[in-house]
Amino acid sequence: MRAGLTVLLTLLGASAALAGPRIPIAERLRDEALAGSQGHALIESLTTEVGPRLAGSEADARAVAWAEATLRRLGYDRVWKEPVRIPRWVRRHERARIVGAHGQPLMVTALGHSVGTGGALRAEVVRLPDLEALRAIDDDRLAGRIVFLDQRMERHRDGAGYGRAAEGRAQGPREAAARGARAFLMRSAGTDSHRFPHTGNTYRAEDGRDIPAAALSNPDADQLARLLRRGPVEVELDLDVGFEGEAESWNVIGEITGTRPQAGIVLLGAHLDSWDLGTGAVDDGAGIGITFAAGAAIAALDTRPQRSIRVVAFAAEEVGLLGAKAYAHDNADLLPGHVFAIESDFGAGRIHAFRAGIADAAWDSLQPWLAVLAPLGIEIDRSPGGPGPDILPLQQAGVPWGALRQDGTDYFDYHHTADDTLDKIDPAAIDQQVAAYAALAWLIADGELELRPAPPAPPRR
Amino acid sequence: MRAGLTVLLTLLGASAALAGPRIPIAERLRDEALAGSQGHALIESLTTEVGPRLAGSEADARAVAWAEATLRRLGYDRVWKEPVRIPRWVRRHERARIVGAHGQPLMVTALGHSVGTGGALRAEVVRLPDLEALRAIDDDRLAGRIVFLDQRMERHRDGAGYGRAAEGRAQGPREAAARGARAFLMRSAGTDSHRFPHTGNTYRAEDGRDIPAAALSNPDADQLARLLRRGPVEVELDLDVGFEGEAESWNVIGEITGTRPQAGIVLLGAHLDSWDLGTGAVDDGAGIGITFAAGAAIAALDTRPQRSIRVVAFAAEEVGLLGAKAYAHDNADLLPGHVFAIESDFGAGRIHAFRAGIADAAWDSLQPWLAVLAPLGIEIDRSPGGPGPDILPLQQAGVPWGALRQDGTDYFDYHHTADDTLDKIDPAAIDQQVAAYAALAWLIADGELELRPAPPAPPRR
Repeated sequence: MRAGLTVLLTLLGASAALAGPRIPIAERLRDEALAGSQGHALIESLTTEVGPRLAGSEADARAVAWAEATLRRLGYDRVWKEPVRIPRWVRRHERARIVGAHGQPLMVTALGHSVGTGGALRAEVVRLPDLEALRAIDDDRLAGRIVFLDQRMERHRDGAGYGRAAEGRAQGPREAAARGARAFLMRSAGTDSHRFPHTGNTYRAEDGRDIPAAALSNPDADQLARLLRRGPVEVELDLDVGFEGEAESWNVIGEITGTRPQAGIVLLGAHLDSWDLGTGAVDDGAGIGITFAAGAAIAALDTRPQRSIRVVAFAAEEVGLLGAKAYAHDNADLLPGHVFAIESDFGAGRIHAFRAGIADAAWDSLQPWLAVLAPLGIEIDRSPGGPGPDILPLQQAGVPWGALRQDGTDYFDYHHTADDTLDKIDPAAIDQQVAAYAALAWLIADGELELRPAPPAPPRR
Repeated sequence: MRAGLTVLLTLLGASAALAGPRIPIAERLRDEALAGSQGHALIESLTTEVGPRLAGSEADARAVAWAEATLRRLGYDRVWKEPVRIPRWVRRHERARIVGAHGQPLMVTALGHSVGTGGALRAEVVRLPDLEALRAIDDDRLAGRIVFLDQRMERHRDGAGYGRAAEGRAQGPREAAARGARAFLMRSAGTDSHRFPHTGNTYRAEDGRDIPAAALSNPDADQLARLLRRGPVEVELDLDVGFEGEAESWNVIGEITGTRPQAGIVLLGAHLDSWDLGTGAVDDGAGIGITFAAGAAIAALDTRPQRSIRVVAFAAEEVGLLGAKAYAHDNADLLPGHVFAIESDFGAGRIHAFRAGIADAAWDSLQPWLAVLAPLGIEIDRSPGGPGPDILPLQQAGVPWGALRQDGTDYFDYHHTADDTLDKIDPAAIDQQVAAYAALAWLIADGELELRPAPPAPPRR
């Protein structure tokens, strides 16, 4: 027993000696952020001064300028931007109403990348409870009609209901189009009961014969469903939206240059673009504020980690991960040197767990360091999963990834709506997250731990 | 002691004998409603089949037809309607945006009876914290500017914050106009933090020189205030709204004819019109459902009270109590026979207290009957106050009034917004209210209690 204890203590001492001030610095980063970080002020600045910033819009360019100027102001060692070409899609106006004896307006918003109606379109509505029912239906029943996909999203802390809801949004319009429908309406992919329709991208039809597609707020979907129980319902839809050529946007990158940059790059990401309806506070102003502030805390140290840290404000996430794809493509030769990548893009709720896609062997070395996160209420979660959306192209390229899993219970109340505004964010929850990102980024960047090979990425869809 | 007890028991027995089945019937009405009333189904029907019903609109006429048909279907003894002339005010479109370096849209809605902007109006914004500050300011600072009244409404169970907020809405535009402002914006008179602006009527300028007036949602008011702290802000406002001649609407009345109609009339009121933004579920579909169902429960009895009960669906409450004023005017000769009047117009929250404007002497007789309400959690509240809005003209005419005071904690989250929809209503809370109205109406109608003279009404404003 005595001998064993001596060995243990010796090992612990050796480990501490190897780590040097690594752990104390991580703890300091954590505690200082927790006591008050710059995160919330950055979210306030972006969402107030720029507001909504749809990829490719004039406001998106202002957001890029904001990100560059802000990263410089925050003391990053290097700041630059990399171009991203995107199709420009615009929303001019959108209206819908029930016509006839129960005439009344409906709150709708076009899905991203929808075509317009070309003036008012009027047709009878066919309600279908889910995507499976839409796929199973006879074309005859849909020809010339408006499909109403009345699939309700479930609320879960981890957003588990979103996958199914988003699939309805992505696939529903093309499935309806293939069956001769004239237009597509869906119950919003959202968990709230307010009259905010939730936008979000949809897929184009494979044969190019797209139909206009829009989402109804949950109360409006309830209303339409109630009226359909009483008899046939005709809806008039007027969506003036569509593509307008191409636009340029940029990934904006702030680097904290490591003392041994050849030891690799640790990437912290978030996305700079937002949907046009709200000011993009929870999606993804929060991620921008958290990662920018975490990097800034490290940049403010009078030391540097061994590896470099890149904070990447990805362009055009909402419209198809275009910035993330461009980053992976344009930095392909650097990806073998990307030792770890993580994104904050799940709103502003507190972090409760750390998950990662890293080599099994790496967990043993990483786990003691992760103890730094424990006082933040962050548990280690070794269940399988995936990274944030902008990390997917890096995962495909074999880059190990992490995920600081947040409480997303109310995320889909605001996500992709006009109601995604600053007031929905608790500054203390932002500080907790800045603390976690700063400590984690420091540990992995300073630690020279080999996290490869990452588990295989799922097949690309 | 023995003798005293005997006297007491004799008195109680005599009282029960005098009451006959009055109390047991009230208890049955209460318990049956509590077990499940028609109230919520009626609210569902009105708000679904008619939807928004702005006074004077086509939908308002449909609401009147709905009310007549519904009162007949519910078995009222007599159903009729009485015409009300109203100025027709319409909302065609409304847009606002911050222009310049922080350009972004603002969520606004015109105040009721506002004039339009006549195309886009662009001016610098001057923020004022409250109506007092607006009244105190030099004209020079406002000339040619847009006033932004940034007064925040407080949340209280009894809606106590509304008086001040509504005064800002009513008086603000004319005060700003008198000081040379070009337009008026206000933080919504509402307690939520969602991007729903709250409409509501404003007063016209006394000299006829009205300026356009609109409300910002609370998050938009926050945003504008934040930008104003950074420097001057210019806003573009485009309100296409205004008066369009006159329209006719109707008070719809259902009567349960008493066995001794000369003994008087007990009036239960609610208002049928709503603002145009939501479907008017909490304001005042709830009141319509509650009072219609309470009367229906009495109509379904195989007996009748001594006095008649009138359930009145008032027209055009939102635009100046026009139905209530018409009722008081056109029924002036019957008002001395109106023994009691009460309105349900404070949303869908549970009732917690009974208040009344009746003769002091009447309280002693009424109080034992009010014990029927105690199991509903309703206390007797003898503090001063006033009746629901449509009862004000009757109060002025000396009619005794009551108020079943509701929990309005969240009422001003939805009030006068697009978000005032059926999903905000708890059916069980409606049953509790139907129980209270049915029992109370029965007791007062059957009881022949003299409630006059009512305390003097406050001077008319």
